[in-house]
Amino acid sequence: MIKRSLQLMSNTAYKFVPSPQASHFGPSVWVEFSPLSIKHKSINLGQGFPDFEPPQFVSDALAKTVETGGFNQYARSPGHLRLVNAISKVYSPYFERTIEPTTEVVTTVGASEAIFCAIQTCVGQGDEVILIEPFFDIYSGAVVMAGGVSKHVPLREQPRKNVTDARSSANWELDWDEFEKAFTPKTRVLLLNNPHNPVGKVWSRAELERIAEIVKRHPQVTVISDEVYEWMTYDGIKHERFATIKDMYDRTITVGSAGKTFSITGWKIGWCIGPKNIISAIANVHQYIPFSVHTPSQEAVAIALEETLHRDYLKELAQMYQGKRDRLVTSLRQAGLDPVVPQGTYFVLGDTSRIHLQGDEGQSSSITGMGKHLRDWNVCRWLTTDIGVTAIPISAFYSEEHAHLPANYARFCFCKKDQVLDQADKAFQQIKNTKNFNIITLLYNHYHLCIFLHTLSLF
Amino acid sequence: MIKRSLQLMSNTAYKFVPSPQASHFGPSVWVEFSPLSIKHKSINLGQGFPDFEPPQFVSDALAKTVETGGFNQYARSPGHLRLVNAISKVYSPYFERTIEPTTEVVTTVGASEAIFCAIQTCVGQGDEVILIEPFFDIYSGAVVMAGGVSKHVPLREQPRKNVTDARSSANWELDWDEFEKAFTPKTRVLLLNNPHNPVGKVWSRAELERIAEIVKRHPQVTVISDEVYEWMTYDGIKHERFATIKDMYDRTITVGSAGKTFSITGWKIGWCIGPKNIISAIANVHQYIPFSVHTPSQEAVAIALEETLHRDYLKELAQMYQGKRDRLVTSLRQAGLDPVVPQGTYFVLGDTSRIHLQGDEGQSSSITGMGKHLRDWNVCRWLTTDIGVTAIPISAFYSEEHAHLPANYARFCFCKKDQVLDQADKAFQQIKNTKNFNIITLLYNHYHLCIFLHTLSLF
Ligand SMILES: Cc1ncc(COP(=O)(O)O)c(C=O)c1O
Ligand SMILES: Cc1ncc(COP(=O)(O)O)c(C=O)c1O
Repeated sequence: MIKRSLQLMSNTAYKFVPSPQASHFGPSVWVEFSPLSIKHKSINLGQGFPDFEPPQFVSDALAKTVETGGFNQYARSPGHLRLVNAISKVYSPYFERTIEPTTEVVTTVGASEAIFCAIQTCVGQGDEVILIEPFFDIYSGAVVMAGGVSKHVPLREQPRKNVTDARSSANWELDWDEFEKAFTPKTRVLLLNNPHNPVGKVWSRAELERIAEIVKRHPQVTVISDEVYEWMTYDGIKHERFATIKDMYDRTITVGSAGKTFSITGWKIGWCIGPKNIISAIANVHQYIPFSVHTPSQEAVAIALEETLHRDYLKELAQMYQGKRDRLVTSLRQAGLDPVVPQGTYFVLGDTSRIHLQGDEGQSSSITGMGKHLRDWNVCRWLTTDIGVTAIPISAFYSEEHAHLPANYARFCFCKKDQVLDQADKAFQQIKNTKNFNIITLLYNHYHLCIFLHTLSLF
Repeated sequence: MIKRSLQLMSNTAYKFVPSPQASHFGPSVWVEFSPLSIKHKSINLGQGFPDFEPPQFVSDALAKTVETGGFNQYARSPGHLRLVNAISKVYSPYFERTIEPTTEVVTTVGASEAIFCAIQTCVGQGDEVILIEPFFDIYSGAVVMAGGVSKHVPLREQPRKNVTDARSSANWELDWDEFEKAFTPKTRVLLLNNPHNPVGKVWSRAELERIAEIVKRHPQVTVISDEVYEWMTYDGIKHERFATIKDMYDRTITVGSAGKTFSITGWKIGWCIGPKNIISAIANVHQYIPFSVHTPSQEAVAIALEETLHRDYLKELAQMYQGKRDRLVTSLRQAGLDPVVPQGTYFVLGDTSRIHLQGDEGQSSSITGMGKHLRDWNVCRWLTTDIGVTAIPISAFYSEEHAHLPANYARFCFCKKDQVLDQADKAFQQIKNTKNFNIITLLYNHYHLCIFLHTLSLF
């Protein structure tokens, strides 16, 4: 016995080996660009959170709740009652049905935990999840931890009808054949994001109906519709909810977040809305992860949601962001970074194809060494170091297989103070004065213009 | 094409099928006893959260943070800097080393999410986790979601040296052979809980050293030490940390929670402390679940932890709880529910073997129908309906295989106002006046007394 122990002890060096799912994860795109932005004191239009304070009625609601006391212990695990009631009141009209507060809603630690729990609830070992590229990077981690496999279908940017038309997020469309082919008998979840980060696309009702038609052919598929930017649509475009498409409510988990709506991303309050049987399964999963959500903030968000019933806050929010969108779109256009005008969200894609990097520009400044082989990462680094504005390379939102597709795009946020957007504007206008700006590029690199020129030559 | 679609459509009825891991989960013990307690207006000593407000300096810290503003957006994903710094300052002396704040700490949504992430990080499909019974019920859910398999080793209550000695949580011990046999080449995690919920056991240094000796023979095993009740030990007993046992720091993830320490279970602030390589892997996992933790509360908990360096708060907390423990222990003893005196935590096990249920007593009052076949569930229901005090059946903290072991125990919390404990005391003293109280039981049912009588008959 002692001998055996000694034998075993002779090779006892402990070595930490992460689980297969955890070994998938390295540092994310933020670990490169947030420190790089700090290092170079750049204007950070990278991470998607407001740089301004929440509206007074929202901060006041939390301040009052904390002061009054009585909200410091565990909340009801599937959601603080006042909050699920407020969610039911605010959303029932938009869902065109009565959402039962205690059975059809579960509150979560932001939309992030909502998505994680929804995926855990639907996806097991070897099951497939369809992600539409580009996609918010948190989705794939949740799929991996459920033992699932992501299947990727990219949005394809369609040529504009007229070359003089502005680019629009509406032109980023599914190839319907490619989309339908992604469904297999193993598909368990289709993950939609509407309005779409980072493209800014607001899916039309016709598109959602066409998706529903395809989903209906696959009785084992549940739809997770991530609608965290639901109140940010512009130019009068209406946000349509997948759950309101005929027959879809019973198979749809709609995800929302107070973080985006009330400019309180740090409070981490989100939720799932859906049919009883799915919501109760999600609530069971959620119970084993955080168990419950920050009690005082749930009370405060309930108060804030109730307030939206009596004042025009949600409309004003969209108006405020539309102003900021127009400001950033104009800047990018004037700087030669032809923007894809977003119908929703607080992101804009800028076309960086007129920027020519030379030698190891954009590579040598890397902090983590990530993405040195990708054009968009290097351009985003160069923008940070040489122009003083940080954007995010959107290949971070693609599978490896498709990471080359968005080589010419960078994502810029406009959830920033107007004066910050103005400073960014000044910085952007420097691009033209650099040796890296190439007017000729327009003619060679610009796909649509090439088509246009090609067309001309035919006549 | 149309024909095929129609064919497929003929069997398109969507049916939600949860993932294999999610189908494991039903409603928990709380879903039975919290509503039952409300229905019968009983004194709830079931759920483990304080029914009093946090200390003023803690509420003030959050109130001030909210009022000042500037803490409303996403925190640094692995932890708000002021909080990881405060954790490093407070804990370094107890860990007898310098804990590096940005690489050896990750903050989480309570200890619950800490444990979930730690298990995801270490455990993959088919890997084994050793849980010591009884165990906090959240552990097994986290193991299931990682694809792991729980192996259960029960604590065994040892006879008292003298039958007149009070029972103590110290007498709940591992059977070392049984414990060592639970380790296999597939074991990846040993989960320790110290101080131990629900037994109240504070593991001695000798016990921890013996555990370490066994762990060392298994180079693939990481230890998760859940120490959320670290500051609640009584009668001068010292809380020893597994991470301070020789050679153990490099393989130990220590889990803590502000919820228990500052009576703010609803704020959901917890953390993991451990070696760099493990903590960075946990941080990567955490990034895909909530991404970050409530920013204002992290700031406030940082302030609260800093305060503990200048005042006797932690000592006073233990003193307050020792008073409450003594109050509840005396009540239970006088009521004939012989208590296992806890060395730590805010729980006491009471021995209910003198209560005799008749007919369907304790079964007919069930709300969910759960645990009708288990004596301890029925006794806890009877205590709620007939005595007016709610406790929790601890078989809920055992595997099915061992659920019969604690048939005679119920868990009572003493994290309640003194006046509530006094009301409970009054209620407890009614037990003797019921037809269900059996003085004779003592002679037949009481294991240790039987041994004692048996011994006597030998002489
Ligand atoms: C598309 C999308 N979904 C979910 C989230 C996460 O939301 P929350 O902050 O509420 O966790 C974000 C945040 O950027 C997002 O862009
Ligand atoms: C042993 C144990 N671990 C962890 C937790 C959860 O802690 P938190 O509330 O910080 O998530 C509890 C709460 O009851 C517990 O008893």
